[in-house]
Amino acid sequence: MSKDEAFRPKARRPRGLADRRGLSLATERAIVDRVLGVYQAWGFERLETSAFEYADALGKFLPDQDRPNEGVFALQDDDEQWLALRYDLTAPLARFVAENYDALPKPYRRCAAGPVWRNEKPGPGRFREFWQCDADTVGSASPAADAEMIAMACAALEAAGVGRGAYVVKLSTRKLLDGLLASLGVTDAAQRLTVLRAADKLDRLGPEGVRLLLGAGRKDESGDFTKGAGLEPVAADRLLTLLGARRATRCQTLAAIADVLGEGQAGDGLAELLATNAVLDALGLDEDQAQIDPAIVRGLEYYTGAVFEAELLTEVKDEHGHIVRFGSVGGGGRYDDLVSRFKGQPIPATGFSIGVSRLAAALAMAQGALEADGPVVVLPFDADGMADCFAIAADLRAAGIAAEVYLGGSGPKAQLKYADKRNAPAAVILGGDERAAGAVTVKDLKLGLALSALAEGDREAWKARQGEVQQTIKRAAMVDHVRAILARASA
Amino acid sequence: MSKDEAFRPKARRPRGLADRRGLSLATERAIVDRVLGVYQAWGFERLETSAFEYADALGKFLPDQDRPNEGVFALQDDDEQWLALRYDLTAPLARFVAENYDALPKPYRRCAAGPVWRNEKPGPGRFREFWQCDADTVGSASPAADAEMIAMACAALEAAGVGRGAYVVKLSTRKLLDGLLASLGVTDAAQRLTVLRAADKLDRLGPEGVRLLLGAGRKDESGDFTKGAGLEPVAADRLLTLLGARRATRCQTLAAIADVLGEGQAGDGLAELLATNAVLDALGLDEDQAQIDPAIVRGLEYYTGAVFEAELLTEVKDEHGHIVRFGSVGGGGRYDDLVSRFKGQPIPATGFSIGVSRLAAALAMAQGALEADGPVVVLPFDADGMADCFAIAADLRAAGIAAEVYLGGSGPKAQLKYADKRNAPAAVILGGDERAAGAVTVKDLKLGLALSALAEGDREAWKARQGEVQQTIKRAAMVDHVRAILARASA
Repeated sequence: MSKDEAFRPKARRPRGLADRRGLSLATERAIVDRVLGVYQAWGFERLETSAFEYADALGKFLPDQDRPNEGVFALQDDDEQWLALRYDLTAPLARFVAENYDALPKPYRRCAAGPVWRNEKPGPGRFREFWQCDADTVGSASPAADAEMIAMACAALEAAGVGRGAYVVKLSTRKLLDGLLASLGVTDAAQRLTVLRAADKLDRLGPEGVRLLLGAGRKDESGDFTKGAGLEPVAADRLLTLLGARRATRCQTLAAIADVLGEGQAGDGLAELLATNAVLDALGLDEDQAQIDPAIVRGLEYYTGAVFEAELLTEVKDEHGHIVRFGSVGGGGRYDDLVSRFKGQPIPATGFSIGVSRLAAALAMAQGALEADGPVVVLPFDADGMADCFAIAADLRAAGIAAEVYLGGSGPKAQLKYADKRNAPAAVILGGDERAAGAVTVKDLKLGLALSALAEGDREAWKARQGEVQQTIKRAAMVDHVRAILARASA
Repeated sequence: MSKDEAFRPKARRPRGLADRRGLSLATERAIVDRVLGVYQAWGFERLETSAFEYADALGKFLPDQDRPNEGVFALQDDDEQWLALRYDLTAPLARFVAENYDALPKPYRRCAAGPVWRNEKPGPGRFREFWQCDADTVGSASPAADAEMIAMACAALEAAGVGRGAYVVKLSTRKLLDGLLASLGVTDAAQRLTVLRAADKLDRLGPEGVRLLLGAGRKDESGDFTKGAGLEPVAADRLLTLLGARRATRCQTLAAIADVLGEGQAGDGLAELLATNAVLDALGLDEDQAQIDPAIVRGLEYYTGAVFEAELLTEVKDEHGHIVRFGSVGGGGRYDDLVSRFKGQPIPATGFSIGVSRLAAALAMAQGALEADGPVVVLPFDADGMADCFAIAADLRAAGIAAEVYLGGSGPKAQLKYADKRNAPAAVILGGDERAAGAVTVKDLKLGLALSALAEGDREAWKARQGEVQQTIKRAAMVDHVRAILARASA
């Protein structure tokens, strides 16, 4: 260590990465537990792969990103092979299934939760590590597997605390646009990608902006010009009509889609949506839970058929008082090529992923910033009472109450300040007098806080209740007394 | 994707990293939940830092490793700074505390669980990613903080399922050896390190091997010579007597230590152990839970005072029938320099870490390899019954029973095989006949398995019970019937 003493490193969190504690961490972990609980109740088996994959196995499938092979954290192993940290939970699943294909039940249903890493430019609310919670069915081409994902996503969101009416899961299929493009004679892969990219911007640019991108091109506010897909106005019109085909009910939307696509040209996309919708109906999914919306595009090079998106509908005020609509907190779809690329044989797959960190942030914002209660703190006002303090804490814990002993070296005043800083609901004080009398002094810290707010105003009310805040009682009555304080505090 | 089709990557798990599923994963996560539950009940607040730290912040404190700065996975960020994946949960804590020192309650008590990464040569049972579950008290120099760690480690191990008598937590302090070395006139840092390294090998080499390493040196079986610390035989003797001072009770051990160190030379080490032991007694820790053992050394450059080690005592047979004693499943101690190096002021700290992956492996081995039950599987023998199957699965889930619908495209025989492969306790079969009759056929798969083992022997018993295995019942009676099968299976 001696060599190290001269160098004093600066303690700083790496940029784009977060330290989490308190209520926000507890919310996030509770969401993970509940969502995994739903996935497992639906028969998805838990799988945990490591943080790393070989970079070639991850491939160029980073979702929602045009530039493949960017955006990952990669390093070279000592045998010269490139390792990369997983950027999602699907790519490792594809590797796992391909590696263990013969031994797995088919279809293979797995769920997983954990951090993923993206080597992107960090920004406000945009982190380079965040949690996802996924379920996937590998080996089933049935639209029922897609419908199940949607129904389960609804159940998972509700289990996580999102009320009915506060979310919607939207469904479309990549095949709708592909079918229409084929009927319009668009066969060039680059032109198709430009169309998809334009469609993906409907939310942000509106129909008129997208119309420009489908046609000659669009100049944005900064003056930058984006070349368009070069479609005729009539073709652009039909595309925009398809993207805007969402109606009040799934059934009406299906009719509107059939209408745009035209007799005999509806193709696989509509047939697939009809089959999926039949299962959604059988599963009893209401119109406010699951919608069909052809404007849903998602992950350009990733999904091969059905695409899903879970959106929160509640609007909340951010710290600056602006109304914010949270939008997407999860998504998924059918990715038939992801496993197939290892195996060289077609292996259909579909999945759904909840963005846990985003959902937790949304729920925390909706609830307002509450702070979690700390443990009961036992304060050894008199250093000789340390052993007794440990016995008191042990009694509280045996009664199911989280408790700790103050272990610092400071006096009574600082000890009480510590209890406040720990957000303790109660403090148990053991001084020399208490020890001599076989007693403890118990302080109701929440009531104390409430009364100190009162003190400035209603002096009489304050006096009347002041005696309740701090009471010296027999040691044997301590657990019941603390329990009563906790019950009052949580009432 | 077209560019990708030519290249077919090989699906392979990176070396030294594991895929986990089924019972072993469930065991590991259950341990984490229970241990964190104990830590939180003792007043430790949960904190989660990201996987990365700046490499200079991690420093050269890799525990139990002589060569600093080796053994981590590091990569350069796009701003040229070096990032490294955490190799334990303590170094990120030190960074966090130093960065947020003024805002934190002091002492700061935190717990954490998660994967850590070591870039080491992998081997059998030796992985490059594994889970730890830690608790730390930063800002208390009190021996009571160390005693609390030991008592809490016992509570955590018992909560995780390790029975009383099946483990022991051992305690020593680095200051015992330091005190003795000082009284022997050893002041050279390199010589001290050689002595510590020799002491750390007592388990493996025995007293005679250590005696050689304390003196001139030792030639191992391969003929390699390790230079010794160069102590006189009398000095080596006293060191070995100290290392062997463990007796039947903590009190007797303390007396034996006092005896070796001699009048007036006992120094800080013994005083510290006496104070810690007083709290252990106050906390009611039995001799079979916590021992004082001067042979415990641990982490050469890391710990500055107290050191702890949790050992499993149960012996189990490995897959080759060899008796294996699991040994260490956790440890910790006092690391007063780790936070101080950022702050330039002394900040005492102590902590304990449970090696979750090791403990899970030990518990799994002790229990024997059980397989976790899968969900109830609903089988659509008749494709038109898919929607009804989803309704059946929903009814089962509503009754708290995990259930899934078979989503593959195969026929009845393959569907039943699938249910077996999923380790389902029961299958609910819906064919055309059942649908017409408003009925389902329920198969008790565990009973079926038990009877097929009987079939070869006791033909009569087999016949008598065969009717129980598969029964066709009214749809409305399905949930109760399945519940009865599950109750029987888990009885």
